[in-house]
Amino acid sequence: MTRQPGSDNRQKAAEHFSVPNADIQLWPDWLPRSNSDALQQQLEHQLRWAQDSIMMFGKPVKIPRQQVWMGEPHCHYRYSGMTFSPQPWHPLVKQLTEEISDFTGYHFNCVLLNLYQDGQQHMGWHADNEPELGIDPVIASLSLGSTRRFELKHRHQPWQLAWDLPSGSLLLMAGACQQHWLHRLPKQSRITQSRVSLTFRYIAA
Amino acid sequence: MTRQPGSDNRQKAAEHFSVPNADIQLWPDWLPRSNSDALQQQLEHQLRWAQDSIMMFGKPVKIPRQQVWMGEPHCHYRYSGMTFSPQPWHPLVKQLTEEISDFTGYHFNCVLLNLYQDGQQHMGWHADNEPELGIDPVIASLSLGSTRRFELKHRHQPWQLAWDLPSGSLLLMAGACQQHWLHRLPKQSRITQSRVSLTFRYIAA
Repeated sequence: MTRQPGSDNRQKAAEHFSVPNADIQLWPDWLPRSNSDALQQQLEHQLRWAQDSIMMFGKPVKIPRQQVWMGEPHCHYRYSGMTFSPQPWHPLVKQLTEEISDFTGYHFNCVLLNLYQDGQQHMGWHADNEPELGIDPVIASLSLGSTRRFELKHRHQPWQLAWDLPSGSLLLMAGACQQHWLHRLPKQSRITQSRVSLTFRYIAA
Repeated sequence: MTRQPGSDNRQKAAEHFSVPNADIQLWPDWLPRSNSDALQQQLEHQLRWAQDSIMMFGKPVKIPRQQVWMGEPHCHYRYSGMTFSPQPWHPLVKQLTEEISDFTGYHFNCVLLNLYQDGQQHMGWHADNEPELGIDPVIASLSLGSTRRFELKHRHQPWQLAWDLPSGSLLLMAGACQQHWLHRLPKQSRITQSRVSLTFRYIAA
């Protein structure tokens, strides 16, 4: 169990952010702090992290973070000109995927894990709108380690939202969020500790 | 009429931002642009603007903007150690107050108008939580002139929202917004044109 007996937050109400074309839910302490820190250590040391390249302006460029793509064998994932085949399940990641599917009521079968070594590592504005995710995909994101800022901005309107995501927090993006909003994890140069995020997705067989 | 016949936005749906402890509604083009610019000129030239002082750390400090406090004769307003007595209604402001009361369904009887000459002028983090406004006051804010950024941050959680408010836009803050969130109009040094805002309030007799 990744969530301690007696500290079950399943009954805990979500914080709701219902904004035009997106429905965001946040559980700031979905995992108790001691669990999330231990889990981060295990994942950071036991997974096969890679600083992959993506295509930008026709050239391969190393991403400013490390990642692991994991899930059911059919879950191939194309983005920014690259195709990623899933690594087989790590038991902890598989268990979390099942727990979060159960908790949220959305079925997830693959996970993009990101490792940000420090505040210099980041992810730019993008949406999780790859065709294999289907229309209006629901994405769940579990944060472990350093608190990092997570920002959302509307594609066509001058509107922004931002949250600091602490270790153990779970964020759910639903509605037409990926169609109408972009999100990013900006640089925060003062941060010296690492963060791991697990972003849960579903790809039809 | 401040709103042209044939361009009535009363039927137009609001953009809703429903977040923990606050309910924000935005009508980006409540007034047509030509009306809002003309209205700004009239208010900027016809009102008796003053760069009032407020008390900070026991000393009077000039506010980094100009203001006018206007409304029903009983609407005295205390904040930051100063008491403001209302100027009598300017007919345009009275008419807008009635239109916005009618449009939103909330009764307003006084208005704090702010004039920001350029992007150097601003307003710091605060809430409209003076006792005379009552519990969970509803505040409507009409923007005229330069588009300025308007930010909201939760008092106790690391959550923020931001909108660029164009000329003619109407923003409504409701729910427990003034109790749990702060708002501000930050400096934007690149902006060289002025903005007038009218913030509509209600004070019981």
